[in-house]
Amino acid sequence: MKRLILLRHGQSTWNLENRFTGWHDVDLSERGRQEATEAGRLMENADLAPEAVFSSVLTRAIRTAFMSLDVLDRLWIPMTKDWRLNERHYGALTGLDKAETAEQYGDEQVHVWRRSFATPPPPLDADDPRHPVHDPRYAHLPAATLPGTESLKDTLARVLPFYESDIAPALKRVDTLLIAAHGNSLRALVKHLEGLSDEAITGVEIATGDPLVYALDDHLAVTSKHSLRDGQ
Amino acid sequence: MKRLILLRHGQSTWNLENRFTGWHDVDLSERGRQEATEAGRLMENADLAPEAVFSSVLTRAIRTAFMSLDVLDRLWIPMTKDWRLNERHYGALTGLDKAETAEQYGDEQVHVWRRSFATPPPPLDADDPRHPVHDPRYAHLPAATLPGTESLKDTLARVLPFYESDIAPALKRVDTLLIAAHGNSLRALVKHLEGLSDEAITGVEIATGDPLVYALDDHLAVTSKHSLRDGQ
Repeated sequence: MKRLILLRHGQSTWNLENRFTGWHDVDLSERGRQEATEAGRLMENADLAPEAVFSSVLTRAIRTAFMSLDVLDRLWIPMTKDWRLNERHYGALTGLDKAETAEQYGDEQVHVWRRSFATPPPPLDADDPRHPVHDPRYAHLPAATLPGTESLKDTLARVLPFYESDIAPALKRVDTLLIAAHGNSLRALVKHLEGLSDEAITGVEIATGDPLVYALDDHLAVTSKHSLRDGQ
Repeated sequence: MKRLILLRHGQSTWNLENRFTGWHDVDLSERGRQEATEAGRLMENADLAPEAVFSSVLTRAIRTAFMSLDVLDRLWIPMTKDWRLNERHYGALTGLDKAETAEQYGDEQVHVWRRSFATPPPPLDADDPRHPVHDPRYAHLPAATLPGTESLKDTLARVLPFYESDIAPALKRVDTLLIAAHGNSLRALVKHLEGLSDEAITGVEIATGDPLVYALDDHLAVTSKHSLRDGQ
């Protein structure tokens, strides 16, 4: 039996400030760090020993992976950091205050941007300093690959090929694999693993700092799941 | 011009206790952590931005890499952890108190084990719990690959092939590369980079927490070197 552990990073400083984050590289808050350490303890108590870890290239996910593995004395496992596990790109909303945005565009429009499957927020122009073409961590990628905004559907369209090309092969090599990532990139994986509809996945909430453990057979079909903190 | 930065991890808890460490996975002391952060500041002040990092699979080197890159906001760079950058294996001396060992075997014998090029300490038996065959981080390696003791010469014999197979190709792809490792695995690299004799390398001391920066041409020949803290 294989185990795939999905871990959503804890609170970031922009969560605290109630701003849209997306690809902006904001760090964990003090509470977010505590959540990461607690996630490590939960894995330790469940005798889970990840043999490899994947994360996005965003600091809050990388630090979550590091701090949870530190508890397990497993900093030495191979770690793959890839932009395709990044949070959904929030386009022109990146950095904006959520309440102010709702005042400006109306609650209904903001709800659509936050919760619809296929409607992205307005895009960033490529010359906007917030656009990923200006960030050295993406310098090796063709500019056309880098989004100026994303819907959840767009996020799936990069997460799932990465699952097939990199995560699934790793999961064939090891028994226990950890993925430290974000609400929407993990939603993409949950949709795939559980075979959820486009409609259903928009309603799924993944708790921060609560390792979600999937048991899979040797063909990587899910046989069961439970979360370590909430037990659901 | 290429830059290769060699960073020796700072003080570990066994340095404090004056015990032979080798492959034992002891962590950084509080002072060692401060040294790692300070190494990050030194790189920042020198405008060095590593694009990739290599470390051993020992926690003290991994944490040194992480803490120094954290200062640089570059946790997102690709990191390769490989046993071939481990400290020299100290054989049956692993874990022993240095003063007690000198009393038992004599200062002269201990000096030979510590400072000669080709004389290893007595080996660990494979059934000794300190032998690397019992450590899950080496489970993917053939048992015959894993040393029960090493001389500096033995250390070179695994570090240098790894330099050729993995580090040099990475250095052709990027301009600035960081290696966070140990006194003796870094000696192996210094010997290679500077073309030192077997005799000369045994006298070279690499300071902890002081990034040693080599400038190299496109053929990876060294054109200059200096350390960031001591400037030498």
